[in-house]
Amino acid sequence: MQIILQSIATVHNTRREVIDDQWGDTISEITLESFVPTEAFAGIEAFSHLEIIFYFDKVDDTNVVFLARPRGNPDYPLIGIFSQRKKDRPNKIGLCTVELLECNGRTIRVKGLDAIDGSPVLDIKPAFKEFLPPNEIKQPEWVTDLMKNYW
Amino acid sequence: MQIILQSIATVHNTRREVIDDQWGDTISEITLESFVPTEAFAGIEAFSHLEIIFYFDKVDDTNVVFLARPRGNPDYPLIGIFSQRKKDRPNKIGLCTVELLECNGRTIRVKGLDAIDGSPVLDIKPAFKEFLPPNEIKQPEWVTDLMKNYW
Repeated sequence: MQIILQSIATVHNTRREVIDDQWGDTISEITLESFVPTEAFAGIEAFSHLEIIFYFDKVDDTNVVFLARPRGNPDYPLIGIFSQRKKDRPNKIGLCTVELLECNGRTIRVKGLDAIDGSPVLDIKPAFKEFLPPNEIKQPEWVTDLMKNYW
Repeated sequence: MQIILQSIATVHNTRREVIDDQWGDTISEITLESFVPTEAFAGIEAFSHLEIIFYFDKVDDTNVVFLARPRGNPDYPLIGIFSQRKKDRPNKIGLCTVELLECNGRTIRVKGLDAIDGSPVLDIKPAFKEFLPPNEIKQPEWVTDLMKNYW
């Protein structure tokens, strides 16, 4: 089954390189594509956080592997693609919860988005308290190590 | 820019109807499509929660509106599509954090997925503690009211 989507907005920021860490202070602007009316953002400023679903358009499809050590680090175990968040994945979808700083017409300004400049956005959803995990997250040790300089 | 994706797995559960509430106790099985090797789930059981990105394939594209009262409720304000989570949205992407109960070969069993039976899955990502919102979520009152029977 093929699913055809389109970019609903584009990311603008100073991050040109696909690098792994230090995304926390990145400020991005996300501007709606011309076919989307400005009203699509009505009421968005009542939310503190948004979930941004974006597309890793620069990732080469031939890079996708189904089993790999996260970041190629020999200290980490071999992990399935759906047990890690690396960009070289089927459908090349990225997902990040960001802080909403401002909405100005057709553009929102957000903090902490781990997408590079020019990334197409597939969806924007407001973060609801009720959609947080209902109980404590457990994760393996390699995740905690991998994430230590991410933000 | 058109983006062509494919289903990487399919949801199986007892939810046949598109209804709004009481998703919390729903148990779903998610089975990989035949082109995805079983190793794609390697290491997944070390995680307590997953983020499931799925496709509202039953939603009629002509239903998409950019400004609407959530659930058509006249008590709620007119809200932009990217300020709410309703299914009638551009790209028809759903997103839900679920509890992982079990992985059995090519199938995972999860709790609390708000997708109906047969829904195509676009991506599965492990929930990392470090990807939770770094500070408290604020949301408007209509969200708290709308979500009161959701789980």
